Amino acid sequence: MNAREAGAVDAAGVKAAVLVEALPYIRRFAGQVVVVKYGGTSDHDALALFAEDIVLMRLVGMRPVVVHGGGPQISEMMARLGKTAEFVDGLRVTDAETVNIARMVLKGQVNPQLVAAINVHGNYAVGVSGVDGGLIRAEARNSSLGFVGDVTHVNPAVLHGLLNDEFIPVIATIGSDATGQAYNINADTVAGAIAESLNAEKLVYLTDIEGLRRDVDDETTLIRQTDADELDALIADGTIAGGMIPKVSSCIHSVRSGVRNAHILDGRIAHVLLLEIFTDSGIGTMIKGHHEETS
Amino acid sequence: MNAREAGAVDAAGVKAAVLVEALPYIRRFAGQVVVVKYGGTSDHDALALFAEDIVLMRLVGMRPVVVHGGGPQISEMMARLGKTAEFVDGLRVTDAETVNIARMVLKGQVNPQLVAAINVHGNYAVGVSGVDGGLIRAEARNSSLGFVGDVTHVNPAVLHGLLNDEFIPVIATIGSDATGQAYNINADTVAGAIAESLNAEKLVYLTDIEGLRRDVDDETTLIRQTDADELDALIADGTIAGGMIPKVSSCIHSVRSGVRNAHILDGRIAHVLLLEIFTDSGIGTMIKGHHEETS
Amino acid sequence: MNAREAGAVDAAGVKAAVLVEALPYIRRFAGQVVVVKYGGTSDHDALALFAEDIVLMRLVGMRPVVVHGGGPQISEMMARLGKTAEFVDGLRVTDAETVNIARMVLKGQVNPQLVAAINVHGNYAVGVSGVDGGLIRAEARNSSLGFVGDVTHVNPAVLHGLLNDEFIPVIATIGSDATGQAYNINADTVAGAIAESLNAEKLVYLTDIEGLRRDVDDETTLIRQTDADELDALIADGTIAGGMIPKVSSCIHSVRSGVRNAHILDGRIAHVLLLEIFTDSGIGTMIKGHHEETS
Amino acid sequence: MNAREAGAVDAAGVKAAVLVEALPYIRRFAGQVVVVKYGGTSDHDALALFAEDIVLMRLVGMRPVVVHGGGPQISEMMARLGKTAEFVDGLRVTDAETVNIARMVLKGQVNPQLVAAINVHGNYAVGVSGVDGGLIRAEARNSSLGFVGDVTHVNPAVLHGLLNDEFIPVIATIGSDATGQAYNINADTVAGAIAESLNAEKLVYLTDIEGLRRDVDDETTLIRQTDADELDALIADGTIAGGMIPKVSSCIHSVRSGVRNAHILDGRIAHVLLLEIFTDSGIGTMIKGHHEETS
Amino acid sequence: MNAREAGAVDAAGVKAAVLVEALPYIRRFAGQVVVVKYGGTSDHDALALFAEDIVLMRLVGMRPVVVHGGGPQISEMMARLGKTAEFVDGLRVTDAETVNIARMVLKGQVNPQLVAAINVHGNYAVGVSGVDGGLIRAEARNSSLGFVGDVTHVNPAVLHGLLNDEFIPVIATIGSDATGQAYNINADTVAGAIAESLNAEKLVYLTDIEGLRRDVDDETTLIRQTDADELDALIADGTIAGGMIPKVSSCIHSVRSGVRNAHILDGRIAHVLLLEIFTDSGIGTMIKGHHEETS
Amino acid sequence: MNAREAGAVDAAGVKAAVLVEALPYIRRFAGQVVVVKYGGTSDHDALALFAEDIVLMRLVGMRPVVVHGGGPQISEMMARLGKTAEFVDGLRVTDAETVNIARMVLKGQVNPQLVAAINVHGNYAVGVSGVDGGLIRAEARNSSLGFVGDVTHVNPAVLHGLLNDEFIPVIATIGSDATGQAYNINADTVAGAIAESLNAEKLVYLTDIEGLRRDVDDETTLIRQTDADELDALIADGTIAGGMIPKVSSCIHSVRSGVRNAHILDGRIAHVLLLEIFTDSGIGTMIKGHHEETS
Repeated sequence: MNAREAGAVDAAGVKAAVLVEALPYIRRFAGQVVVVKYGGTSDHDALALFAEDIVLMRLVGMRPVVVHGGGPQISEMMARLGKTAEFVDGLRVTDAETVNIARMVLKGQVNPQLVAAINVHGNYAVGVSGVDGGLIRAEARNSSLGFVGDVTHVNPAVLHGLLNDEFIPVIATIGSDATGQAYNINADTVAGAIAESLNAEKLVYLTDIEGLRRDVDDETTLIRQTDADELDALIADGTIAGGMIPKVSSCIHSVRSGVRNAHILDGRIAHVLLLEIFTDSGIGTMIKGHHEETS
Repeated sequence: MNAREAGAVDAAGVKAAVLVEALPYIRRFAGQVVVVKYGGTSDHDALALFAEDIVLMRLVGMRPVVVHGGGPQISEMMARLGKTAEFVDGLRVTDAETVNIARMVLKGQVNPQLVAAINVHGNYAVGVSGVDGGLIRAEARNSSLGFVGDVTHVNPAVLHGLLNDEFIPVIATIGSDATGQAYNINADTVAGAIAESLNAEKLVYLTDIEGLRRDVDDETTLIRQTDADELDALIADGTIAGGMIPKVSSCIHSVRSGVRNAHILDGRIAHVLLLEIFTDSGIGTMIKGHHEETS
Repeated sequence: MNAREAGAVDAAGVKAAVLVEALPYIRRFAGQVVVVKYGGTSDHDALALFAEDIVLMRLVGMRPVVVHGGGPQISEMMARLGKTAEFVDGLRVTDAETVNIARMVLKGQVNPQLVAAINVHGNYAVGVSGVDGGLIRAEARNSSLGFVGDVTHVNPAVLHGLLNDEFIPVIATIGSDATGQAYNINADTVAGAIAESLNAEKLVYLTDIEGLRRDVDDETTLIRQTDADELDALIADGTIAGGMIPKVSSCIHSVRSGVRNAHILDGRIAHVLLLEIFTDSGIGTMIKGHHEETS
Repeated sequence: MNAREAGAVDAAGVKAAVLVEALPYIRRFAGQVVVVKYGGTSDHDALALFAEDIVLMRLVGMRPVVVHGGGPQISEMMARLGKTAEFVDGLRVTDAETVNIARMVLKGQVNPQLVAAINVHGNYAVGVSGVDGGLIRAEARNSSLGFVGDVTHVNPAVLHGLLNDEFIPVIATIGSDATGQAYNINADTVAGAIAESLNAEKLVYLTDIEGLRRDVDDETTLIRQTDADELDALIADGTIAGGMIPKVSSCIHSVRSGVRNAHILDGRIAHVLLLEIFTDSGIGTMIKGHHEETS
Repeated sequence: MNAREAGAVDAAGVKAAVLVEALPYIRRFAGQVVVVKYGGTSDHDALALFAEDIVLMRLVGMRPVVVHGGGPQISEMMARLGKTAEFVDGLRVTDAETVNIARMVLKGQVNPQLVAAINVHGNYAVGVSGVDGGLIRAEARNSSLGFVGDVTHVNPAVLHGLLNDEFIPVIATIGSDATGQAYNINADTVAGAIAESLNAEKLVYLTDIEGLRRDVDDETTLIRQTDADELDALIADGTIAGGMIPKVSSCIHSVRSGVRNAHILDGRIAHVLLLEIFTDSGIGTMIKGHHEETS
Repeated sequence: MNAREAGAVDAAGVKAAVLVEALPYIRRFAGQVVVVKYGGTSDHDALALFAEDIVLMRLVGMRPVVVHGGGPQISEMMARLGKTAEFVDGLRVTDAETVNIARMVLKGQVNPQLVAAINVHGNYAVGVSGVDGGLIRAEARNSSLGFVGDVTHVNPAVLHGLLNDEFIPVIATIGSDATGQAYNINADTVAGAIAESLNAEKLVYLTDIEGLRRDVDDETTLIRQTDADELDALIADGTIAGGMIPKVSSCIHSVRSGVRNAHILDGRIAHVLLLEIFTDSGIGTMIKGHHEETS
């Protein structure tokens, strides 16, 4: 055996080891729904890596569901249309024109980009918004914010249909009320509500941080694993604040409502979904649900 | 019996007569797919009437499928974004930015308006575009036109799934090629291709004319009923021209490919779909397919 | 637009309005079982109108079930066979020969007439009696009445089979005991028992009166809507008496046993079933069940 | 072991032997349709024996279908109603009143007697006539005979439904034309047409003769087994004549149309159906179809 | 009628009577699971008779499951391999080599003989052992006995699959623990555990005794019918002892766990299974379960 | 980022790359049947590696089927039982006792070892032999060889049932004739016949050679890819000879009968199945079928 052959055998051994390591996770997650909140970057390469992960999850028998927002793209389109974004307490004030722009950008721009990136691999993804099949019923959060909505009800029939037909639903986070009026809804919150309605195995947030920390300024305090009670405390003492609140609150609510685990991952790591799901080491922060304790 | 009562009985008789007249049509069309190309007006009242008709068709057991374009809305958004529409031989030259605007307007604005109008009556409609589930595969028609596409293949799996789950598909006429690049496609043509792929009972175009005429300037020459061969002749001699060509060509092709009948109706008449489908008198122009002759 | 055309448009408007009015009722009753007790006239035209209504109900997705008796026809046949009908307390004394004649007339004459009238429109109706598939198990009401039976058990398996196969069951009200002995049973009572066993949406009696009245002699006291408790009182104070007792008692029992509404309609009005079911105004007397209050 | 015990063991051996002999026939006929034309006696004991056989066939997995006429009972009822039966060439002239009497007697008297006799054993039998579900479409044979019909089409949907629901159809041989007009049809002919429409394994005629003979006057010439060609010859030379013609013609036609075997059995032998089907020796006359030769 | 013919008619009458006697039992046991513990003789003729009975049960719609051991064959093979069987308290001490021999003999010799005997009649039987599909999970009874196992769990998925595919499972009583280590398990005990896991109608032990006796030495004290409570008493007072304990204990446990009846039959009687199941007289000892009392 | 972290990221990159490389193969082989002939070693570690591979194939949606022989184990048992193996032309002469030993060893020793090794990972494997469900019908090859059989028919019903129930069939290569007589059959040949009967995607032989060579003595002549025609030539010129003949002949026959590809792999390489199926480089010798050319 010469050096080249020895290298080949060695590479083969590594490949085999990775595949074998993935084995118990493939078995465990077969048929399970995993709801992934995509962070919303439009970067083409990042999108392509993300799409590969979603398709691999589907191919090994999982049932991924993608939820996305698109705040930056909405702001950019508003700017192009000469409309100034106005914020109250960090929430975008959403008049009738703004919610129409949001709907247009989310459903007509961001959503088809995600669908197209996935469908390069086959006819897998189907894009829907909360208005399709009455998926997300919403109501105004607060009259001063206009058409900023809260989820009042999720009707997952259209998702069940698509999942049974082996499609990957990609969800733009626009909801509507009984009159058909559209509302813009926080995508992190929608992801949690969707995960609960589907009794998902996992709810995964792809973010631009490494994970949650016990001390925001100390990178050595990354939380590998936690639960809803500790997160309640970290919110109460102000450790978790700002834009992380909707994500973390949704994690807390969903694991208390039957979702087995929630995850906050660093979306900047290539194939972070695969690494979290199919390897022993895990990655980012995992919030364990009650089911976890007894199984 | 006083006059009020007599009037009531009389009204009852009329109501009963209408319902009884509808009976054989309900029987005939039960379970049949009817593809309706909606003309694209955004007028709220017209949309509401149209939505009522589509829901009634669904309720009596038909399987309606809605196809729509949205040229005026695309042009308006292009104007707002400071982009000048350019046409070659009546076809919009579609550069990369233009096709993205078209996709955004069709999928993100026109499509959800239609879905919302239908879903006021229940969770019936689900909006899709040609990229969802790989529904419409397209290729460039002509390099000088940019991303103006022709349909190369229809993969109706996502429509079959939605129809089996008793949803009403509402289709925005954007297609894509194998790389995920979007194309803008003539909505009249897409309607025909969808009807063929679903082996539809009817293909219906809602237009702003009363129907086809043998002499364009003479309203007494309205064609009540015709067939593919006569329409070939009317195109050849120039009677049918301009914007009617894609509609009429799709009618011809579809009835020759298994669609039973095609219809060109006046979308300005309230509930024109109901009147065409459920009454003896018919309305507009009907193009009979080969099946019609033997049944 | 000339006068003829204006008239046509007007007629079209009326037709469309009727169809649109029917829309929410079609939606509401889709898939629901409606048990209709047919009053038993053999008049050919009345039968044809009735058959049209039943077929229309079926075509829009309802599941009608027809129950019929045939007292006059039984009496006529007894007379022809030289047999004198004898009554005790308004109930026909039914010896062995009489019950055989009743079975023969109901199953062999009245039932096939109804089936044939419906099947002019297609292969919809299938006639059964209570002996078929053990549908109606009966026992003697009272030894002095002979083979006059009360329903002891309904086994709706044969009806479920026919309804699942999309047939319209037409039921002759003969039951049998465990030995196969036939009994003649009051058709009004059977209709109620069948409605309960099928968890019907509606139980409808077609009669020769306009509806129930609070004062029998005052046509202005027609009861449009009532409930089981009020009807108990009206029976107790003698307002409801005679031949209406089995109908009204069955209405009371069935709405208390899960049937949503019962109706007493005037079968002399053409298409009275369609008018009751598919129009806003309603007709005759409606007895509301408990479900009605909460939905 | 004493004599009583020895006898018991011996009896046990006989019982076991009979059950074991039946084994290959049970296997062979599992799921197969067997159409049995019942000769029409109303004798209570004969009926009970016949019913036992039909139920046993059903219990071991066969799918029996019973067809019956009832000429004597029709004649008797006509006599009671003061109507004289008139015959032309051996066929009953059937005016409108006569066909109504025939329908009444067959569907309302003979059919429920058969159903009741079977249902003593459980809720197995469901009676239908040719008008139910459009089972038998008929036309007049000859205007001079009135409403004597020939079968023009069998629509076995109602039978498939009942068989799939594991019921035993019992068929009264009344058919109807498109207008719903009833016709009286020869029951032997109907049995053959039903057997063909169901692709039956066996068509069995229960008669009051031992079987077919090559020489009518010589009981030693009983035909154990024959085929369609020999029967053609026996009809041509007049050996088979009179009332046997419809039976034998139906046997010939049905075995040439896919029915595997036809049988002419002596209905006077107790449990003759069981003996024919489940024992090695066979009984009566068997007409082999083409399938038999190759299997 | 001559003597030969009279004899034939008489034989026919006997055959018909046996078939008719079997009728209610066929009805009662249709679709029911019957677990039969085969006593393990390798005698070719006995095996053939047993196989006929099992196939007949299957053909009339029952779902037989066969369980077998094979102690004598194991001992014989051990002797041939020069291995001395060692017993402690009547239980075979089972070292690693011994359990491998047991597995080899049961699964590789006795099981295929049974499968082959049944499959002479068709492709009915499929042999499995407790390791297949994880059917029988076991643990060591007692460290001094080595690999003698007790059943800790039955996973009947593989049996449900085979029964749904209309196969007859034949089960060799080898189980395994989580590491895949094989254990030899008492076949009488396994039969009971299998019957419970399948919610069987009957659990039948084929033995070499006539049945249980109240006084072992008095053949007139054969117990025809008993229940779990009486058997508890008979074990307590020592009437039932030795090798009958596992059988009787399994009968007691299984009828208390939902099995309707258990039977101890004399396997030396030809076709004893048929006689017990399909005749009125019954045979051997029947242990009634609680269900029996209320049905 | 310190060195440890850099190493972790690097390892993560390698893992992700392996998983992504596997993606198109997982998609391509989803739901496909792969028949693997296991070489028959009883080495515990090799068996464990093999079992892991089979389970991983199953977990990612493939449908593996294992076929095994066990010549050395049969010879060993024969020796222990004092029976001398006799060979004619390299084929074991198989008298009645020998075939019984072969059946006992294959079905009772080798088969349960394979099943147990797989079932350590879950209740996946079910062992069957050719006699179960009539899987393999055989006849004597040659009277001088005794019970050495050739496959005459494969009835894969039992395999379809197990595969549909998501089990992994493990097949011992014993067949039987219509009388139930067992035959010992070459396992390589059986693997091919099973692959053909299941219309397998792949037929894989695990051997103790690196692959086929064009020059047996020159390791640089390893054949990476070939087809049936070239193999015909290599057999004809004697390059392929001896024990490879049954494997190569089965490869040739199966790819000509619809199996897409056949493979001869080196079973001594750890996880060789995973490396062949899920990596781009391939391994061993692949024999392409006709399908391959057009896809």
